[in-house]
Parts: sequence; structure tokens; C-alpha cells
Amino acid sequence: MSITRPSGRLADESRAVSIEPGFARHAEGSVLIRVGGTEVLCAASVENRVPPFLRGQGQGWITAEYGMLPRATHTRGNREAAKGKQSGRTQEIQRLIGRALRACVDLRALGEMTITLDCDVINADGGTRCAAITGAWVALAIALDKQVQAGTIKRSPLRAQVAAVSCGLTDAGAVLDLDYIEDSSAQADTNFVLTSEGGIVEIQGTAEDAPFSEAEFNALMGLAKIGTARLFEAQRAALENAA
Amino acid sequence: MSITRPSGRLADESRAVSIEPGFARHAEGSVLIRVGGTEVLCAASVENRVPPFLRGQGQGWITAEYGMLPRATHTRGNREAAKGKQSGRTQEIQRLIGRALRACVDLRALGEMTITLDCDVINADGGTRCAAITGAWVALAIALDKQVQAGTIKRSPLRAQVAAVSCGLTDAGAVLDLDYIEDSSAQADTNFVLTSEGGIVEIQGTAEDAPFSEAEFNALMGLAKIGTARLFEAQRAALENAA
Amino acid sequence: MSITRPSGRLADESRAVSIEPGFARHAEGSVLIRVGGTEVLCAASVENRVPPFLRGQGQGWITAEYGMLPRATHTRGNREAAKGKQSGRTQEIQRLIGRALRACVDLRALGEMTITLDCDVINADGGTRCAAITGAWVALAIALDKQVQAGTIKRSPLRAQVAAVSCGLTDAGAVLDLDYIEDSSAQADTNFVLTSEGGIVEIQGTAEDAPFSEAEFNALMGLAKIGTARLFEAQRAALENAA
Amino acid sequence: MSITRPSGRLADESRAVSIEPGFARHAEGSVLIRVGGTEVLCAASVENRVPPFLRGQGQGWITAEYGMLPRATHTRGNREAAKGKQSGRTQEIQRLIGRALRACVDLRALGEMTITLDCDVINADGGTRCAAITGAWVALAIALDKQVQAGTIKRSPLRAQVAAVSCGLTDAGAVLDLDYIEDSSAQADTNFVLTSEGGIVEIQGTAEDAPFSEAEFNALMGLAKIGTARLFEAQRAALENAA
Amino acid sequence: MSITRPSGRLADESRAVSIEPGFARHAEGSVLIRVGGTEVLCAASVENRVPPFLRGQGQGWITAEYGMLPRATHTRGNREAAKGKQSGRTQEIQRLIGRALRACVDLRALGEMTITLDCDVINADGGTRCAAITGAWVALAIALDKQVQAGTIKRSPLRAQVAAVSCGLTDAGAVLDLDYIEDSSAQADTNFVLTSEGGIVEIQGTAEDAPFSEAEFNALMGLAKIGTARLFEAQRAALENAA
Amino acid sequence: MSITRPSGRLADESRAVSIEPGFARHAEGSVLIRVGGTEVLCAASVENRVPPFLRGQGQGWITAEYGMLPRATHTRGNREAAKGKQSGRTQEIQRLIGRALRACVDLRALGEMTITLDCDVINADGGTRCAAITGAWVALAIALDKQVQAGTIKRSPLRAQVAAVSCGLTDAGAVLDLDYIEDSSAQADTNFVLTSEGGIVEIQGTAEDAPFSEAEFNALMGLAKIGTARLFEAQRAALENAA
Repeated sequence: MSITRPSGRLADESRAVSIEPGFARHAEGSVLIRVGGTEVLCAASVENRVPPFLRGQGQGWITAEYGMLPRATHTRGNREAAKGKQSGRTQEIQRLIGRALRACVDLRALGEMTITLDCDVINADGGTRCAAITGAWVALAIALDKQVQAGTIKRSPLRAQVAAVSCGLTDAGAVLDLDYIEDSSAQADTNFVLTSEGGIVEIQGTAEDAPFSEAEFNALMGLAKIGTARLFEAQRAALENAA
Repeated sequence: MSITRPSGRLADESRAVSIEPGFARHAEGSVLIRVGGTEVLCAASVENRVPPFLRGQGQGWITAEYGMLPRATHTRGNREAAKGKQSGRTQEIQRLIGRALRACVDLRALGEMTITLDCDVINADGGTRCAAITGAWVALAIALDKQVQAGTIKRSPLRAQVAAVSCGLTDAGAVLDLDYIEDSSAQADTNFVLTSEGGIVEIQGTAEDAPFSEAEFNALMGLAKIGTARLFEAQRAALENAA
Repeated sequence: MSITRPSGRLADESRAVSIEPGFARHAEGSVLIRVGGTEVLCAASVENRVPPFLRGQGQGWITAEYGMLPRATHTRGNREAAKGKQSGRTQEIQRLIGRALRACVDLRALGEMTITLDCDVINADGGTRCAAITGAWVALAIALDKQVQAGTIKRSPLRAQVAAVSCGLTDAGAVLDLDYIEDSSAQADTNFVLTSEGGIVEIQGTAEDAPFSEAEFNALMGLAKIGTARLFEAQRAALENAA
Repeated sequence: MSITRPSGRLADESRAVSIEPGFARHAEGSVLIRVGGTEVLCAASVENRVPPFLRGQGQGWITAEYGMLPRATHTRGNREAAKGKQSGRTQEIQRLIGRALRACVDLRALGEMTITLDCDVINADGGTRCAAITGAWVALAIALDKQVQAGTIKRSPLRAQVAAVSCGLTDAGAVLDLDYIEDSSAQADTNFVLTSEGGIVEIQGTAEDAPFSEAEFNALMGLAKIGTARLFEAQRAALENAA
Repeated sequence: MSITRPSGRLADESRAVSIEPGFARHAEGSVLIRVGGTEVLCAASVENRVPPFLRGQGQGWITAEYGMLPRATHTRGNREAAKGKQSGRTQEIQRLIGRALRACVDLRALGEMTITLDCDVINADGGTRCAAITGAWVALAIALDKQVQAGTIKRSPLRAQVAAVSCGLTDAGAVLDLDYIEDSSAQADTNFVLTSEGGIVEIQGTAEDAPFSEAEFNALMGLAKIGTARLFEAQRAALENAA
Repeated sequence: MSITRPSGRLADESRAVSIEPGFARHAEGSVLIRVGGTEVLCAASVENRVPPFLRGQGQGWITAEYGMLPRATHTRGNREAAKGKQSGRTQEIQRLIGRALRACVDLRALGEMTITLDCDVINADGGTRCAAITGAWVALAIALDKQVQAGTIKRSPLRAQVAAVSCGLTDAGAVLDLDYIEDSSAQADTNFVLTSEGGIVEIQGTAEDAPFSEAEFNALMGLAKIGTARLFEAQRAALENAA
């Protein structure tokens, strides 16, 4: 008899997703993405300048910052602004989000423009970095559409949709879309950032306790494709909603 | 013929207020307060310890931290966590929120417990510190009620309601509850923190350009009483809602 | 029978004031102000540039920095330079001093020039921020006179005198010019920054323990007018002395 | 006709490896690892205490710190100690090294002891994080052997060898063990941390420019097994050398 | 015909010295030392604890901190507290002051007590570190006398007087007690910290432009003995004054 | 019968020195200097720009940075990059190295160029700052020779060799070239930076416990001349080796 997941979900069942556009009213694009109990506010800010290392090269830049409200978690975490520095975890995540989004944008077609994606976790229940990437893509797409409509750029430089999901090895076997309880006790946890065209943008697989096998890894990859397919749908629905 | 306010509001008309409890699901008490276009998430965290300077003195502590999401404003602001320090403005505001709430709590009756109020601005349209105080009071009250219900404390140590509103001298005269446009061009801006029992907790009056007179100050004080009366009502409604 | 003040002063009696010009020999203007046991060295530095946000706008800037020598107090405080950051209190005070002085200067008439007021507390016995404002005004006036004499500016852009005093509610009732002992135990403490022409520049009123009433506030305001009248006189005497 | 690698190496040919024990004379274990032109000094320090979050739990801890000498690179980089903070990249790498080594150690068998692996890059020519992991494992093994010999622990808590190699997609196709030139222009770069028993400890795959396919990923994985097999041999040789 | 010094002083003529006790009223010992145009406030703070590395060893500690008010100099310097760190120069000087004073105190006889010497430069005209050492010794002696009188320690643990002077090679040859103008253009500058019993506590000699000879160094040493002899007298006079 | 040195060396016997060029392969000049058990990697980086305070003055700049690998010492030290600041000791040493090298270079002849000497201690056994200066001089000379060969500068702006050695008063009397054991217990420790032409560049003498006499100081100076003579030879041999 097999062990069931704490949430009662099937192994290949992801959590309910909702992507609500327009939450940050001043931003050029924004969404509040909810993946189960995880809620992340993603806001895209467009600026007509590029960082120093890109000046005069006729291309744009996409970057991201990530934060967690102190009480997004079960027990209050210290405020990074008060501590005076961002943790290694925070920096690692915001670098990941930036890379993931750059991989789906034609930076030359963007022109000399910087788009910053602020991803702030309002409530955390596992998978915040994946939710951030998935939501940030929609915020970015909305901001880019607005540039096209305003005539600042001719066509959207987006080359594909990008979404992310975490899969892991738990007592219930290989499962899709870990929540906090599963994440805390998984033997392995892998984040997959995939494109709507079947490409791999980033894979971050980590054995928490004991190493895992190639077969196990392949099972996780299979689940990730199922999970991101659903996320791509939710992204498209949100974009239509925002239009 | 008199000059009208940019929003078309009457001089003594405050903005629509809504206080939605439960937004930060893990917090002991939380609300999302909306005052016109300003939205602040206020979360109360209860911890069974006191800061070093209060140890062994049989009393509790209330403190606050304030932050603004980078894109809460018209143009993106730098993330304080990334800059590595909180601005003077941020520190000034969080000290104000803490003092305002301590003034309405019997810290001895609270016992050796610290309650931290995190006030994070999601959208800013003027008056964020006042909205933070008004909302934080409700988050605090919810958290205290929960302690009473759990038997951790015998009775709520709250002595009164506390709310805050800004009044200012603008081209339209003395007006209640400044929004961002009014705030940017006001000749004077005063924040009043008042209690439901008619007491003054804090007054911060600042001439932005030219000094103002005692008569003008008294007019602002009169408006503040009208404004906070409405806020006290909204607080009570939210508390009933949360119960 | 009424309770007397710890110092034996009458309720409306302020402490002895002396303002000694020229203490910081290299500064364009400087004074050592003594208010009872509180001593603050105020130095004005003139620079021919403005901060980035004012460049090319044909106006000047007045700003202030505040510090306390580690042993200005009863027990040694940590040196902020060694801790690596200025406390919230320090930043709050230096922002206040800057605002107070800007409110009495015609920044357009000043031209593209920055004047920095360094206020360093040598000995502290309550009311250091008020002494800093009162002394900094004199240092500023001396520095401006020197500019006029040198022909750098045509006429002094000073529009009024500015001085500050703290008043509070103590066991002896509403009293003028709190010293350290009174400050530590006052039920309410209000700093008034007023101009020689009867205008209000800044009011910072704080209930330390229990809220206070409007009548009590008005009593404090009355005392502040008495106190600042004496300070304006001392400022004028110091200026004549410096000329 | 196929494109050759800049170094003339075959696609599945890794660079020369040497692991010289004993370079940091005071350390409980140390090696200087050379992988082609990349040189990393790895030093293991044993301390009889554990971090606060592990106190009293009867288990040990393995952690790592990473640094690069300012002139390890073609052009001088800023010294992180002088800048006052470690970059996001540095933190990401040192977190990776720590996780990789913990995955091959039985922390309970280690007992209440912390081992810190300092990995400092003397010369950089691509693959510094992989060289750091491979070398740090040997430094750790030497330090653990010394503990066993000294009787501090009964048996070595090492469960397997761990080594790392980067593979990437370049103009010459999927290749093993990228050097700096290849790393700078690779379309995808994946770091594999594998165990001598065939397990996966960590996979970090990143598309630099365009997404890559699952087939391409599998080719990289195949190369990684070849590359790490050689590294495991070099580790064993170094350990015998050190004994 | 020989070149004269900018000040008209003879080669072996030091500047006027005055040492005024009691300037920092709350400190256990304090002086304002004036050496020509250089003025340093030195305050000794006594605390009944020792730093962690000395706990339980039955001895005391003497340490120092140094600062310069922003406008102690011809042009305003940045405030170190605002910049968020002490400069290398500041740290070097405060380490020197601490070492110099420890060399004349029997730390065992002091007992488990820490005395911190805060040396803050009010006006700078060359030789601030030497003035700080000379003045700090008096502040320390006053504080120790107070401890003896209070019975906290049996006898003063001071073993000798310590004073410091800078000598240098200028266009006018080897000269005693450099002022700012001389200091800025000296070919060599040497600080001598000597004891009243003829001992050398510290020598810091630096060639600014070209190396200097042993004969030149000996000439500077000879001047230093003359200069410190006068400082020892001034210290004794100040101590009598303070008693 | 006299007390012998812990190492068995004679009083005027310095440790074995080796200077191996080319250790940092990317640097314009580099050496690994070994003085007994002390090993320092010195790397010279040439950049075609000068610091802001020298711009447009037609002269160059020489500066230095110093660091110690965390496990260069008997017990592991904290990594300064992780702590977020360089210690006072580190800053003091790097300022010393920079001054020492500038004293032997004609900065005008160098032209608008900055050379940074990174001195990183791999293994520490006393005298690291002296080894750093001695080694950095060779790295600098190699880098300058390369500039001359490349025609960037006409002739080497080096005016002399510079080397440094520490001498001290120990139980075995005045001795040359202290190792760690001697350094930890010396009554006085003096660092001498001398030129090959007999000039003094810097003297830093410190009494650790009790003051020392002029005669003792002269004995140390005599030993320093012997010690640096040997270092100048080693420098010349290394340079020939590098050519």
C-alpha cells in the first residue's frame, strides 16, 4: 500500500493556480500569483536605461529582485533591510529569476531598456521561487505589451513562455509541485524552469540527504513537464484577462 | 470662488477606508488596510520573549517595522535590503508606529511577550504611515484577542483604540486626509495620532515651505478629530468581522 | 501644595543659555551653544555645489548632521562610526534640524550652494536637538553674513530666526525646557520649532506613557512661545558678538 | 567537418588534474587542486562546536566558504573584504560546496563537530566551483582520517566520494570540462556533482542564451559520468599520497 | 642662510600646550588638550567588565577610540558614522593610542575593569594623534585617581607618564612638533611615544617622499626627547590642577 | 649561559628565504615569497588609470591590499569578506605596504598608471607584513620591466630596492627576523623597511609590555641592516630568475 501525500494530492497533481493581474497599480505590469498557499506579488518596472556594462550596445536588460515579507512564514523571519544585507538564499533566487526571464527575451529587440521584476512573497507555502518565475513572466509580458501598444518597441521581444515548478522525492515517491511540508522532508528537490516550446532553461536539482539516481531524476523531469503545461495555460489565461 | 481639492473631495472629507483581516495567513493577527489608493499589509507576530533591556521586569514590548515594496510608488524605489540599510525616513516611521501602539497598551498586563507589527506598503498614495498605524492597531487587537482566547493572557491589555490621519494646508485650505498629489504640494503637513477616548498620542507637524500659524494648526487638529472618528468606526467593524 | 521641579526652576523658567561664536576655527560659521548642562558645537560648512537632485535648478540646499560624543552622556554610548551606522534617533534628529533651517531660508536667493550644519553634542543634559537647532541657526547666520561680505551672495537669504525648545508634562505640571531628569520621566514631551515672527516650523509631540489632552497641549505651546522668545534674544546677542 | 575545441581537446576529454595534499600547513586537511589552469587551495578546519541551530542534537556540521584572490582572473577583480560584502555568486558557490559535501557525510556519526572547508581560488580558468568541490572532498577526507587516528571519532563518517565537473553545449557540441574560453561562450553550462557510487548530489543546468533540449541534457550527463570517474581516481591517488 | 619654519618657531621649539581638565562633565576623567591650533577632547570611561578575551584572567584593559569632527579641518570631511565605517587612518590611530596607554599601566593591578579613552578632535592643525595620546594620559590618570579615592583599586596602576610628539624633516631641517603646514610637505614624519622615565613606547617613522638616513632619524629622536619633556611638565601641572 | 632562540637560530640569523616568480599566472608580475614558514603570494596588477585625487596630474599611483586566508594561521580566523569589513590590523598593514613601495618609485616617471599589489598570506609564521613588502617589491619590479619591454614606459621608475624585516627584544636578547613563537612573547617588536641604498623608509617600533631603551632600539636597527642585506640579494636573484 502506497503512502499518500500530506495534502492528499496525487503524485502528478499540482496545486490550484491563480494569476491576478494589476495588483501593483503603479507598475507597468504586475500580478499576484497564488500557487496553493503560496502568494507572490510580481511587478515589472520599465526604465529607459541599461546597466553600465551594457551601455551603447543596443540591447536591453531584464533583472529581478526577490524578497519575503517578514511574516510570510510560519515564524517571523528577520527583515533583510533591517539586518542590512540580503541572505545568500535571496541572492541565489533573484539571480535565478533574472536568468530564467532573460532566456525567453530577445534582448536586442528590447532595445536600450531595463525591466526589473520585483517578486515579493506575501505568503509562503513552498515553491516561492517557482511561483515567482511563473508570475514574473506574466508581469513581464503585460509590461512588454504595453510598450508595443505605446509604440516604444515594434513587437514583443518575448520568444516563449517560461514557467517553473519544483518536483521532489518524498516518502510518497516522485511527486509534482511540493508544498512546504513536503519540501521540508523531501530526499531530493529539483526546480525545473521550462519553456512552452519544450526547452530547458534551468535545472536545479539537490539531494537533501542521500544522492538520487538518474532514473529518479528522469521521473522528476517527466512530472515537471506535466506541471509546467498547466502553468503555461494559466499564464495565457491571465494575459487574456489583462488585455 | 474657492479652489477645489484635486480629488474633488470636500475639505473635511476623508478617503474610503477598508480593513480586511487575515491577509497574512501565518500571522497571529493581520489586516490589509486600504485608505483610498494606499494599501498597507499589517501583520502582528507574537513571541514569548522580550528585548534584553526589559528582561526580568515582568512587562512586555510592542515594536514595529515598516517597509515599502519597491514598486509601491509611481517610479520604482530602490529595495532597502539591496542597498543594505533602511533610510532615515523608514526608521522614523517605524519608530513612530511602535510608540503610537505602545501608548495604548498596558505593557505590564501584556506580560513577558513581544509583539512585532510589520507594516509593508503594497501601494502608496499618500498617508502610508497613518494607514500603517490605523491598520496595525487592528492587527494587534486581533493578535491580543487570540492570546486571551488561548489563555496566555487574562484580559486584553489594550486601553484604547489608536488611529492616525494626516491633515494639511493646501491651495484649497486646511484639508483632511492628504493624498499623494496634495501631500507633494502642501504648505504644511501634520500627522495626528489620536485615541478613541480623545487623547493625543503623537503630533508631527511640519512646515514644508513657510511657517504656519497657531490658528491654522488648530484647524488641522479639528479636521483630525473628524477623520479619526471615522477610522475608529472602521477599526471596530473590522474587529467584529475578524471575530 | 504643588510639586517643584527637580532643578527648583519655575514652570515657565528656562535654563541659562550662552552662545559662543567661533569655536570651530575652520568653519565658515560656528558656535558652542550651552543650554543648562547641554553643550552642542554647531559648525556651518559652505560648499559651491548642490546635491544631484537639485542640479541646474538655480537654488541652494541646507542640510544637517548630528552626532553625540560617546561620553556626552552619564554612561558611555557606543560610537556610531565604530558600530557602522547611525541610529534611527540620530537620523530623525538630523532630518529635523535640516528641515527647521530650510524653513527660514530662501533657497533661491541662496543660489547653487550647499550649507551643512554639523551639530555635535559635547555634553548632554536633555534638549540636545533643540539646542542644536537654536545654535545651528546662529552658525548659519554667521556663515551667510560672511558670504554677503565676500560678495558671493547679494543679501542674506534668511527670512526669520528659528529656535527650538522642549516642553513637557511632568509631576510638576506643564513645564518649559526639560532637563535630562525631567525628560526621563515626563508623561509627554513636545519639541516646538518656532520662528521669531510667530510662525510654527515644526511640532513633535509624543505621549510617553498615557495620551494627553488638547488643553495640556495648548499649555505646552504657550510655554514654548515664552521659551523661544528668550532664545531669539540670545541668538541676536551672539550675532552682534560675532560681527 | 566538425568544429574543434579551443584547447584542441576531444569532446569527452577532461583537463589534467593534480591534487597536492598539505599545502595549508596549519589546517587539519588541505590540498592544492589543479584542473588545467584552475588552481584552488582547499583547507579543512575542525572545531569542537556546532552552529546554534544544531546544539544538543548529537550531530555535526560541514560548511564551506569560497573566495577568489583578486588577481586569480585575467583582469583584477575587487577584493570582497574591501567592498564589504560577498557577491551573490560567491554565496551561491559556497552554499553549493557545503551542500555537496554534507550529502556524503553521516552527520550523526561525525558527532558535535564543525568542519569548515575554505576554498580559495589562486588561479582561475573555468570550473572553479567544480574544482573546489573535488578538492574539498580530499581535504575533508584527510581531516576525518586524522580524527579517526586521534580517536576523536570511531570511524570515518564519509559515505562516498563526491566530485564535480561542468559540461556544456558549445560550437563544438556537447563537451566535457569547460575551460574559461568555452565557459564564456557556451550556449548551456551544467555543473554535475556526482558520487563514486553513481548517485546524483546536485545538478545545476543553465541555458545561457537559448533553451536546450532533454536530449542535449542527457548528452551532458553522460559526459559528466566520464569526467567524474577520472576525478574519483585522482582523489583516491591523492589520499594514498597523503596517508 | 637657513630657511625658517612657516610659524617662525625655532627648530627645537614646540607649540604652546594647555591641558584643561573636566571638559566632559560625565566622564570619570577628561581634558581638553590644546597643542597650538590642535584641540582634542579626551574622555576616560570606566566600566566594571573586561572584553571577552580577558574574562576571568584577573586583569584589566585599556582601549581607545578616535574621531574627528567633520569640520575640525580646513575643508569639511565626511562623517564616519554617516559613511558607515571608520577609515584605515582612524583605526590605525586608535590602535596606537590604546597600545601607548597600555604600555604605562600595570593591567593586573588595574583589576577586571575596562577604561576607554575617547579622543575626539575638535580643531586640527597637525599632530592630532600625539595630542590625543598626551591628553588621554591625563584623562586616564584622573580617572585612576578617582578609583583610588573611591577605594575601587588600592593604588594607581600607572607606571610612568606617556606623551607623544611628531618630529620631521622639512625644508628648515629636522624640526620639533610639526603643524599642519609642515606636516603636509615634510619629507619624513616620525611620531615618538616616550615615557617620563626615558623609555620608548612606540616609534612610527615614515618617509613621505624619499628615504631618510640614520643620522637624520637620530636628530629627530633628540628633538622628541626635548618635546616630550615639556609635555610631561604640562601633564603634571594639569593633574595638580585637577586634584 | 645565554638563552637560545626557540628555533635554535643565532641572534643575527634570519630564516631561509625563497622568492618564486610567476605564481599568479594572469598578473603582470607575481611571486610566492617564503620566509621560513611564512608564505605570501604577491601579485602586481597594472591599470591605465589613476585614482580620482590624481587625475590629470601626470603621475601614477602604487597601492596595496593585504589579506590572510582563513586557515593561514594555527586556528582558523574569520574570513573578512564574510564579516563584511577589513580589520584595523589589515588596513594598517596594507597602508604600510603601499607607502613602502611608493617610497622607491618615481611616480612622475610611472605616468598615469595604477599598480595594485595584492599580498595574500597562504601560511603565517610571523613577519607576514615584512614578507609582503619584500615580495611585493619583486612583483612590482617584474611588472615594471614588462611595461618597459612593452614600451608603455621608457625606463623603470624604480629608484631602489625596498625590503622589510622585523627585529625584536626577546628572552634571548635582541634578535633578527622573529617567527611566530618569538613574536607572541617579544617585549618589543620593530619592523624596519629599508632601501638597498641604506635609506630608511619606515620604522614601526612597539613596546609590547614595557618600554625599551634607545640602546636597545639601536641594536635592533643594526640587526635590520643585516637582515635586509640578505633580502636584497634574494630579490635580485629572483628578478634574474624571472627575466
